[in-house]
Amino acid sequence: MQSSFSGLWPAMLTPLDASGEPNLEAVERLVERFVSEGLDGLYLIGSTGQWPLLNLEQRKAVAERAVRTAAGRIKTMVHVGAVATEDAVALARHARNIGADAISSVAPIYYAAGADATFEHYRRVGEAGELPLFAYHLSQVNQLAIDAREYVERLLAVPNLAGMKFTDRDLYQFGLLHVYGGDRLQLFSGADELLCHAVLCGAVGAIGTFYNIWGPACRKARQEFADGSVELGRRFMLVFQRAIHEVIRSQGVWSFLRGAMLLKSGIDVGMPRAPLGALDKPWPEDELRRVIEMVDAA
Amino acid sequence: MQSSFSGLWPAMLTPLDASGEPNLEAVERLVERFVSEGLDGLYLIGSTGQWPLLNLEQRKAVAERAVRTAAGRIKTMVHVGAVATEDAVALARHARNIGADAISSVAPIYYAAGADATFEHYRRVGEAGELPLFAYHLSQVNQLAIDAREYVERLLAVPNLAGMKFTDRDLYQFGLLHVYGGDRLQLFSGADELLCHAVLCGAVGAIGTFYNIWGPACRKARQEFADGSVELGRRFMLVFQRAIHEVIRSQGVWSFLRGAMLLKSGIDVGMPRAPLGALDKPWPEDELRRVIEMVDAA
Amino acid sequence: MQSSFSGLWPAMLTPLDASGEPNLEAVERLVERFVSEGLDGLYLIGSTGQWPLLNLEQRKAVAERAVRTAAGRIKTMVHVGAVATEDAVALARHARNIGADAISSVAPIYYAAGADATFEHYRRVGEAGELPLFAYHLSQVNQLAIDAREYVERLLAVPNLAGMKFTDRDLYQFGLLHVYGGDRLQLFSGADELLCHAVLCGAVGAIGTFYNIWGPACRKARQEFADGSVELGRRFMLVFQRAIHEVIRSQGVWSFLRGAMLLKSGIDVGMPRAPLGALDKPWPEDELRRVIEMVDAA
Amino acid sequence: MQSSFSGLWPAMLTPLDASGEPNLEAVERLVERFVSEGLDGLYLIGSTGQWPLLNLEQRKAVAERAVRTAAGRIKTMVHVGAVATEDAVALARHARNIGADAISSVAPIYYAAGADATFEHYRRVGEAGELPLFAYHLSQVNQLAIDAREYVERLLAVPNLAGMKFTDRDLYQFGLLHVYGGDRLQLFSGADELLCHAVLCGAVGAIGTFYNIWGPACRKARQEFADGSVELGRRFMLVFQRAIHEVIRSQGVWSFLRGAMLLKSGIDVGMPRAPLGALDKPWPEDELRRVIEMVDAA
Repeated sequence: MQSSFSGLWPAMLTPLDASGEPNLEAVERLVERFVSEGLDGLYLIGSTGQWPLLNLEQRKAVAERAVRTAAGRIKTMVHVGAVATEDAVALARHARNIGADAISSVAPIYYAAGADATFEHYRRVGEAGELPLFAYHLSQVNQLAIDAREYVERLLAVPNLAGMKFTDRDLYQFGLLHVYGGDRLQLFSGADELLCHAVLCGAVGAIGTFYNIWGPACRKARQEFADGSVELGRRFMLVFQRAIHEVIRSQGVWSFLRGAMLLKSGIDVGMPRAPLGALDKPWPEDELRRVIEMVDAA
Repeated sequence: MQSSFSGLWPAMLTPLDASGEPNLEAVERLVERFVSEGLDGLYLIGSTGQWPLLNLEQRKAVAERAVRTAAGRIKTMVHVGAVATEDAVALARHARNIGADAISSVAPIYYAAGADATFEHYRRVGEAGELPLFAYHLSQVNQLAIDAREYVERLLAVPNLAGMKFTDRDLYQFGLLHVYGGDRLQLFSGADELLCHAVLCGAVGAIGTFYNIWGPACRKARQEFADGSVELGRRFMLVFQRAIHEVIRSQGVWSFLRGAMLLKSGIDVGMPRAPLGALDKPWPEDELRRVIEMVDAA
Repeated sequence: MQSSFSGLWPAMLTPLDASGEPNLEAVERLVERFVSEGLDGLYLIGSTGQWPLLNLEQRKAVAERAVRTAAGRIKTMVHVGAVATEDAVALARHARNIGADAISSVAPIYYAAGADATFEHYRRVGEAGELPLFAYHLSQVNQLAIDAREYVERLLAVPNLAGMKFTDRDLYQFGLLHVYGGDRLQLFSGADELLCHAVLCGAVGAIGTFYNIWGPACRKARQEFADGSVELGRRFMLVFQRAIHEVIRSQGVWSFLRGAMLLKSGIDVGMPRAPLGALDKPWPEDELRRVIEMVDAA
Repeated sequence: MQSSFSGLWPAMLTPLDASGEPNLEAVERLVERFVSEGLDGLYLIGSTGQWPLLNLEQRKAVAERAVRTAAGRIKTMVHVGAVATEDAVALARHARNIGADAISSVAPIYYAAGADATFEHYRRVGEAGELPLFAYHLSQVNQLAIDAREYVERLLAVPNLAGMKFTDRDLYQFGLLHVYGGDRLQLFSGADELLCHAVLCGAVGAIGTFYNIWGPACRKARQEFADGSVELGRRFMLVFQRAIHEVIRSQGVWSFLRGAMLLKSGIDVGMPRAPLGALDKPWPEDELRRVIEMVDAA
């Protein structure tokens, strides 16, 4: 089960048409774009991909089209997390059937779940998927109840668990996962704003929203940093953090993503389902160009 | 739009059959039971009713059967909250069409939403429902950004807003909502464990999980307390809090609810969809009887 | 060691003169005032009394003058909490030597302390004091690590522990302390804004800042509520919560306390040491009168 | 006022003798040790140096002896934070009088202080000190109320503010401080476990507890990493994080620090005042050697 995963993966946007349905043609175009950009993998239908806003059929359709389009040219990891364990299990089986390379899943949401219930949920998903599983970091479980070593062992007892998507800014916890998990845990950094910092924690790669827009620039910066260009990594990260801060503070994150993608690739991913983006104002084109260029030229 | 709502309402369990589908016959039997117990209303398909684990069709079917069975003998409030605004809007319209008396909705979940996005979400739901709307308390919005008076005014600007389900233990915030909202806000207490305490904050009623099991005892205690039996209220609440603590600490909350309902009414509500209850162990009958009796005899 | 404590206790202000030194003459006058108002006890040099801003000698001088002035006419509880265990121990011994009726102590502050270190700190203080000890509620210890019953047993193992000052709004936790502690734990409510609500949790009394200003009104309301006047208690608490909210939101809490005390009793307690009150603006006299009257006439 | 500060600074332990008084001779020996190790500066009487457990006279005596011993051979920054603004102001003046190079101060503790009160506190301290002031990061102020750019401008309006000690693991916030503060803010990393990661955020140096023990190894690793040895930095940080985790989990942090210092330098710093270290068990010498060596050989 231990395939190898690494590198820079966009948490791919799920394009919607005007009626709010997944736009499968745009899915194809996005996949082609990321293949041509030389990115390392696709993270499908995660939070950026609006999983909680889509039903099971929509999620399956998007995953299928993306995996089929990828056709082995780029790795695919399908996020199968769901409120109901059964739904996550069904999506995990579907991901395997369509030929995805891996699955990922958030921990149970909405209802507070203790460590035991969370690991039981993961156990069922991992068993059903028969694919390398990348779990989310469980910050509560880890910090409150058990120490890092025990936490890692419980994770590794999940069937088919291959790694984690660590979507948190606590790089001490991140490092400890690598310290105690070593090669048994393939750790992806899920916080775009700490892309290079996470290399110091043993991250094998990064999955994130902004790689939809700035994939090649981020991939290059991460690689050069890992190869020893510390000053370059430092400069890049500061610019990247500034751009992220500007976008987040703009109260138009989704209109930025849509506008920037349209400008850079001609692909219209539409606006997400409300409440996401419901109050977003469109970005003026010159503002889009300024922020896009800030990172691409960093 | 200002109908009047008050009294003790169970946050009704959604019975499932062995295959995990809503058991509509058991829905009917539950409604009949609560009518015969003289409870004041039914809160349908809230968190206790597993809303995030059911799809739209299942939610509609349960609501329809419950409202039809109630047939005006007991008030009905349908929880229509959903991740996607559009889904909440569709459920709100459905609730009106089937003749529910009111709707309620949690604030947006999963994706962090600021005050503006939250109120926009509520605006659309309230407008679509054309029924009295009971919003949830937004603890973050209230505590961090705005003062109590301003918060109340923003709430009251939501179309058809009639009140709130205050599911939080902060009775200072609760009281301030009544101070500034007065009769314009019909406030239901959503924390079972503070049933009587909330009377001092201007609560007109209470909605909660444990009223599925102990509705008449809780209704009577609340009424007698409100009528001046402080010592009785004190004694009852301490016993009720103890029972709640024992159930929550048992790591078998759902098996308690199922077992207790079966024992008291003969209705089998089944087990919820995983991850809820996935690790619950069945309660021994004598333990069930002991805890049930603790509150019923308080 | 089980003396009995109950009723309404102001968390007495520590009057300072213009140079920032404790004004012992004003201490005397405050004590006389609270005696004449018929209040039940004095809580000395707590957070309202600026304990972290005074050195050990100042704290001892204030405690001594207050206890000597009280002269058995009103009970006294000296807050001896300190960052260093040794300082708390010294203050506990001093409190006993000057004839105080009880001591109280916050849990260790600043440095994060686990449950074991916290109970060890309390153990030394309780042992040294040889007076009834009222600990603070340890919200973190209780919620995260151990269940309510075990928490109570650990508390009761502290030498001379007689009760708690529960300064938190979580009345479920409060009730559980009484459920498992019973008469072994004399529980004082420390949240002014929940004065009457706490009666339902088994509170024997209340300790708080605003009783410096509104002692008799609060004492009367609490008593009448406990005797069965629920509607009166409800009305009073809503007015009291509103007044507290207005004072807190005014950004002049300390100038309110000073101005209100001066207006009602002619005693000038001065302004606290910065940073407390450093940006407070004086309250106009008519505003002071309006807010004072709001509660006194409730 | 813009002297330049950078490099690796131990947050120096304050040695105590058996009676709990500062051991000034050991202070001298510690300073000599850090000078001879080639470290870049000394951070005096911070949290590691037990500031909240010492009175003003003790703090002054330690600062004076350390600064006098340093004699310009190593930079000195005196932590002057205190609960009372006036005490911090007095300590700031004292630091200037004894010839310290800079001062630092935590934000107000114990009493919750809003942004305005916090900046007013810093304003008075900075003005009084007439030395470069290094403030602490105010995570609450920053995250809740104002955006990064505005936060930086408010900081820079504090008289004599030269930089910050950023004791937090949120490296996105750290980076944004540098983005908007640039050369106007000299940023020290205060989280030992993120020593190298912080270089990517524009940190000019690091201040921390564990540099008392592993100063030269950490200084070298940080320097080599900054010069481009990413793989070395990665390996070092993972080992360092593991060692920190082992020490913290041992429930004998203070006995580790004492034992390790004694073993490496022959200086006995004693045990801290309770509650710190009150339950610490002594470390076996072979365990001490193992953990010390883990980092020194990394």
